[in-house]
Parts: sequence; C-alpha cells; structure tokens
Amino acid sequence: MTTVGIRGTFFDFVDDPWKHVGNEQAAARFHQDGLMVVADGVIEAFGPYEKIAAAHSSVEVTHIKDRIIVPGFIDGHIHLPQTRVLGAYGEQLLPWLQKWVYPEELKYRDRNYAREGAKRFLDALLASGTTTCQAFTSSSPVSTEELFEEAARRNMRVIAGLTGIDRNAPADFIDTPENFYRDSKRLIAQYHNKGRNLYAITPRFAFGASPELLKACQRLKHEHPDCWVNTHISENPAECSGVLVEHPDCQDYLGVYEKFGLVGPKFSGGHGVYLSNNEFRRMSKTGAAVVFCPCSNLFLGSGLFRLGRATDPEHRVRMSFGTDVGGGNRFSMISVLDDAYKVGMCNNTLLDGSIDPARKDLAEAERNKLSPYRGFWSITLGGAEGLYIDDKLGNFEPGKEADFVALDPNGGQAAQAWHQSLIADGAGPRTMDEAASMLFAVMMVGDDRCVDETWVMGKRLYKKN
Amino acid sequence: MTTVGIRGTFFDFVDDPWKHVGNEQAAARFHQDGLMVVADGVIEAFGPYEKIAAAHSSVEVTHIKDRIIVPGFIDGHIHLPQTRVLGAYGEQLLPWLQKWVYPEELKYRDRNYAREGAKRFLDALLASGTTTCQAFTSSSPVSTEELFEEAARRNMRVIAGLTGIDRNAPADFIDTPENFYRDSKRLIAQYHNKGRNLYAITPRFAFGASPELLKACQRLKHEHPDCWVNTHISENPAECSGVLVEHPDCQDYLGVYEKFGLVGPKFSGGHGVYLSNNEFRRMSKTGAAVVFCPCSNLFLGSGLFRLGRATDPEHRVRMSFGTDVGGGNRFSMISVLDDAYKVGMCNNTLLDGSIDPARKDLAEAERNKLSPYRGFWSITLGGAEGLYIDDKLGNFEPGKEADFVALDPNGGQAAQAWHQSLIADGAGPRTMDEAASMLFAVMMVGDDRCVDETWVMGKRLYKKN
Repeated sequence: MTTVGIRGTFFDFVDDPWKHVGNEQAAARFHQDGLMVVADGVIEAFGPYEKIAAAHSSVEVTHIKDRIIVPGFIDGHIHLPQTRVLGAYGEQLLPWLQKWVYPEELKYRDRNYAREGAKRFLDALLASGTTTCQAFTSSSPVSTEELFEEAARRNMRVIAGLTGIDRNAPADFIDTPENFYRDSKRLIAQYHNKGRNLYAITPRFAFGASPELLKACQRLKHEHPDCWVNTHISENPAECSGVLVEHPDCQDYLGVYEKFGLVGPKFSGGHGVYLSNNEFRRMSKTGAAVVFCPCSNLFLGSGLFRLGRATDPEHRVRMSFGTDVGGGNRFSMISVLDDAYKVGMCNNTLLDGSIDPARKDLAEAERNKLSPYRGFWSITLGGAEGLYIDDKLGNFEPGKEADFVALDPNGGQAAQAWHQSLIADGAGPRTMDEAASMLFAVMMVGDDRCVDETWVMGKRLYKKN
Repeated sequence: MTTVGIRGTFFDFVDDPWKHVGNEQAAARFHQDGLMVVADGVIEAFGPYEKIAAAHSSVEVTHIKDRIIVPGFIDGHIHLPQTRVLGAYGEQLLPWLQKWVYPEELKYRDRNYAREGAKRFLDALLASGTTTCQAFTSSSPVSTEELFEEAARRNMRVIAGLTGIDRNAPADFIDTPENFYRDSKRLIAQYHNKGRNLYAITPRFAFGASPELLKACQRLKHEHPDCWVNTHISENPAECSGVLVEHPDCQDYLGVYEKFGLVGPKFSGGHGVYLSNNEFRRMSKTGAAVVFCPCSNLFLGSGLFRLGRATDPEHRVRMSFGTDVGGGNRFSMISVLDDAYKVGMCNNTLLDGSIDPARKDLAEAERNKLSPYRGFWSITLGGAEGLYIDDKLGNFEPGKEADFVALDPNGGQAAQAWHQSLIADGAGPRTMDEAASMLFAVMMVGDDRCVDETWVMGKRLYKKN
C-alpha cells in the first residue's frame, strides 16, 4: 500500500449551492491549511492539517503552496474524435456536422490515428484540469477501444461508448443497428467496469437514429442496466424540428428517448437548450440529467440554456457541464464556466422585465447567476451527481478517488494578479469567501493557465511549464 | 535617423472585407516572406522580401520566424480605472457601476494609484497585442494626466479624455459641468496632439449627464473640432429607458447626443446593443461610429449586438471593437473576437427562420459571420477607420506608424498545435487562405497566449516569457 499526504489550501463541496440560496457557503468546505491522506489512490483522511497530521504522523507529505486545491474537473459531454477540429468556422449544428465533423471522425477508423487522437485528447484534458469525462467516440469501435486503453494506462475515470448513427450522415460514416448492437455488446464485455472505465450506450442523437437503432439501445440498456446512456437533446431549433420529422409519433425531443426506455438514472442529454418546462419536469421526475455546454451553444449559435429553469426546485434536473469539444472551442472547464456565467447573465436581461414585463421572473434570474460556488460545484461534485458517479469522486470525502487540481489564482492574463490582490492583498485566501471570490476570478479573468498541477488517483499527471 | 527592417510572414488589410462578400481575400494582403522597413518608427517600405531587400540592402534586418505579423490591435472602448475590477461578480450594468466601478474609480484621484494603474493598464494591453486604445479615464483629471504621461513614455498612440458625469453616481464621484469644461480645456491644451496622444471629449453616458454637461461637451467640440468624442450608447435596456427619463425631449438614445451636436466624424458610441435601424441609419449618414464590445455585452448580460445590421450596406456604420474592460472580462482583443463570433452566431439562429419564419434574413445572417478576415480587419484597419486614425495606422502602408504584433499560431491551449496542423501541416501558412484559417484558430482556439511580441513605432515593447 502506497500512502501519501497532500498539504495545501483546499476547497470542495458537500452539498448543492442552489439548495442554499443566500447562504451558499453552507454547501462548501474550506481548509486554509489542510491535509489529504491518500492510500493507493483513494482518500483515506481529509481535514485541517494539524488534526489529520497528528493521526498520520508517518506519512510523507507533499506541500503544494500558493495554490487552491479543488477536485478534478468533470466534463460531462465531449467528443474524442473532434479534438483536432475544435473551433471550425462558420456553421450551425447540422451543416457543421456534415462539413467538418464527420470527415474528421472517419479518420478514427484507423487505429494509429485513433491512438494518437486519444493521447492528445487526454493530454488536453489533463492540461485543463479535467480528470474525468463522459465522451462520445465515433461510429467505428476502434476509437472507443483506444480511448479506454489510453485512459486505463493513465488510470483516469472515463465514461464512453461506441457512438451509433444510422441516418442523416455520409454513407461511409453510418452503420447498421445490428452492427451497433453487436459491437456495443463486445465493448461492454471488454471495458465496462474494468479498472476505472465505465460504458455508456451512446446513440449519437435522435436526428441520426432510426427507431431500430434506438431499439438496439433499449435492448442493450435492458441487458446491461448498470451501463450509462449518453446522447444529445434539443440543441438547435432546426435539429429539434428535424427530430420530430424523423419520429412523427413523438410529441417532443425527450419523448423519442422515453419511447425507447432510455430516460432515467444515468441518462445524459447534452445541451437541452430548447427543452420545454414539461420536458424538464419529466427529466426531473425520472432522475435523468442534462449537460450544459455553453461554449458550444455560443460557438454554434445554438442558443441560451435556461440554467435558472433547470435549477427550479419545483422540477430540479440533475446536471453536469461539458465543453462539447469540438462544438465547444475550448478544452477547459474554466472556459465553460466563463461562458456559462455569460449565458446566465444574458438570460437575466430577458427576465428582469426591462424588455418584456410579462417575462419578469426574479427567482429564476437569481438561479441563473453562476456564482463561484455554483460554478465550481457544477464541474466537480455537481457534475459527478449528474453522471451518477458521486459515490466514486467529486469531492474530498474519505473513500473517494483522489483526483484533484492545484489552481494558481494568478495564472491567467497579465491583469489577473492585480485583480486578485483586491481580494486577498497578495496572499492566498484566508476565508472561504475569499477563496470563492478568487475562484470567481479564476473563472472570469483566468483560464486553463490557472491549472498548475493535475493529479489522478493521488499521482501527479500534469505540471504546467 | 534609425532605420530597421523586420522580416517575416505578414498579414494585413487594404480594404473592408464586408465590402467583398464571397471574396474577402480581395480586402487582405499576405506576404509569406515579407520585409517592412521602418525609419524612426514610421513604415518606409513594405512588400515581398526579395523586392524590398534589394532596394534597402544596407538596413539591419530582424527576422521574426514562425510567426504571423499583423498590425497592432486597436481597442476602441476601454476604461483605464477599471483595470483592477475586471470580471466583478453578479450584476447588470447600473447596479454593477454603483457596487464595483465607482468605488474603484474614486481611487484614481490619488496620483500614485493612478500612475500604478496606468502602468498596469498599458502593460496588460501590450501583453495582449493592443498598441492603441480609446480609453475612458475617471471624473478626476489625475487619471487622464497619468494615462497620457505613461502612454507618451512608451510612445503609444492613445485617445483618451476626462470622463464627465454629473448625475446618477455617488456624490463624491460626480463633478459639475463647469469643472468638467475647465479641466477638459486644460487637458486638451496640455495633451492633445502632443506626441501620439489624442484627446476625446468624454461625457461618460447620457444616463449620467445633465443637459448642462452635454452643453459643455458641445462647447468643447465647437472650440476644438479636431478632438474626438467618446461615450456610451444603448448598452442595456434599463439604461436605455433611464436615458429617456433623464432626457424626455429626445426620441431615442442617439437623439440625446444629436441634440448637443456631438454625433458625426470622430464620435464613438460604445455598445449600441439596442440601437434601432433608424439610429443606425443616422449614424451611418453622419459618419459616427459604434464600438462593439462583445465580452462586456455577454459578461453583463446586456445583449447581442446586431453585427449584421450595423454592416448592412444600406446604412453601413463605422465600427471599432472594444474590450470594455472592466465590463469586459478580458484585456485581449483576441478574446473579443472569440465572443464577437459567438454573438454573430447566436444572432443567426434567430435569423435563419427556424424559430420565427418572419425574422428570416439570410443576407443579414451572412454579415453576422465573423470570418477571420472580418475579425482581424475589425481590430486593425477597421478599428482605425472607426476611430478616424486610419491615416496614421491600421495596416502596413508606407507612411504609417509601425505598430505590430507577432502572433504564434500555436500559442494557446494544449490542443491548438494539432488543430493548426490540420491547416498547414505543421508549417507556417503558405497562402493567404491558410493564414486566414490559422488566424481563425488564433481567435477561437487561441487567446492572448498567441501574442508573442508587440512592437510600437518599430520598437519591441513586449516579448512573451
């Protein structure tokens, strides 16, 4: 057994800040001088340095100074084979897929290319502080295999699965429901719950899925109920209309997945920009999750996700946040928080009644405000809850896996250090509130440059140059 | 006379890409191997290396390799005394001003603080590749003096002016129209056209200006017709309503400035999110300019600037782009292009008819697409045209001031180099189109990390670590 200690300033969460409006501190935990003891990659003890050190006097301690240590970030929605085409110019969702995405993803039939892609993908995630993702692969099994293999070599927890599509894509890109079923079965047997790998049955999106493909997914979920289900939902208005043309017997986008028994715990629908209140209600009731991908929603112009509506206590929906690389133009969950904050604020100018008094809703507007508590919860413990892996990771509870990030609050653009000095006068944070304010500046003034070190299972896998 | 040569790959503009829909290359200029000869800070010759070198064989040449050299960026709207509060949490425009901005700006009455602020401000600009800005200062003359002094020491071209406000701000922050007139007169005499400094008569915004203050501005403009006029316009719906309450005899926001004779050449109105078609038409006719500040418009949730409408050839409005730090959360004009692209794309989902067929306007949608040509033109030559300084700078025409930036196309997030290698296979750009594609990736995948060197008047003032 290898036991190590990490000493430093720690910030993590014990509850959902949206449940503590006006008192979000109640959801967080802060140790200015803390110690985490990690045995074989798993957290054994965590708390104030003095107290924990006394009980673990023999452990060798690494002291990470001048940093704020937070749980590893969780990216709930990302596409491995779009690593290289992130930020492609000029199109909304459907033409963008045809022009940029499918041609690049086709290259992942080649094992060497897929292997290089998987390496670069995980390198980019670790450099951004992301230690866990739920990933789409491509319609060829090779890329799924290579992602799981590479993640296993790094001991990273990854949720992924063969990405099925049998409609509305080039002929050499699509595959049959039969092949999808067969290949998925094999991949589940080979990878699911092996090491830290977890398998998601992954129909790409309803617009690219025949009823037969969705039936294959339903059968897979029935035969492997502990597997995840990962897909897209209600991203773009033209896509939403297209889905109802493809599935004319369904009343809305969610209805398609409901029809095939996929909506429930461990179900993730990426985007959800155009989900109706009624769909939010049904997702809430069944424990399904939506993945908010603001960089992508802005980059593709899809629209403004109704964050304050998804978090309405009347029909609270589980949620993770995602980059959606390559629809999202940045690998960093810190950039996701930047754009998420902006989406929330733009929503609020529509909700304050200044444009249309009938739309005024100040409670929803309050929920749209992405405070640093809400933001960092969403990409750590909240993301883990959205993905149903909060029993394994997401905060520093003993028993959980020791994935974490050491943030340099001054690491971003030239102006950042002076800004931070307004809060803590050149020193590190002394209180939870100071830490939260500095984390807000990491979100909005900083970026992935603030990620100084990324640790996976108690082992440092990334250090900034 | 000091004469130096700069050799490298150059990209600049000779015309407005929005005038060349479908053939934007016609607006640009590309030399894969170019040479710029600079005499005493001014461009003496520019063109292909072979040709220019032959005619200037004695000049000492600095070869900037593996970079794309573009004109220095122009920030048309930024607030010096908000350098430290950029990215402040949680409010729309009017409460944000009261809570964060006025208290910080008050500190700039102290000369030492103002001097430190001016240094940090210009350091942050240069690190972002910005060589010229049009800046708001504060309501105390000290900050205007310190900005001009510091800019002069660096020989940077800056437009700035005492920022007048006599309403709707804390009592110790506002000043009288009489003092504003007197102090502005003195500052104009002291700084306007001294070295590279240019003076802008600067009423902060109509919501903070009494008719008497605007009358003082009118008198200043009448007495100093070659001075600039810089202000805010139509940023936020609540502000727009507030302005019409303060100025009940005006039909719209622009009408307030028109009433006092301020609208015409050298007039800049920051934001313009809620400008009507009729206001665009009047601005177009008089040669007034709008400054598009997307980071700020998203950060404060102000709304989506109608880029495709401002560029309608029927009433084309002059335009520069701005960070609006601290309403904008980034000093980098590259980040401004990132958010500008996103604003354009979000506009387009409203214009493609998929939500409301009656709003379909594909020509406007086309103009909303911020191609790399449009983007980099807007922060160089286009910005200079918007500010009426294109006779002095903005591209590499001989006779203009030699302000430029050497961009590292691979300088951004970890994933960027592999992305760029899709375009030019690991090498630099060989054609104008390859250069433009790489610049698009600088906008959307990169950030200020791509700024490797910043030169002002032929002298290198910034080099990335």
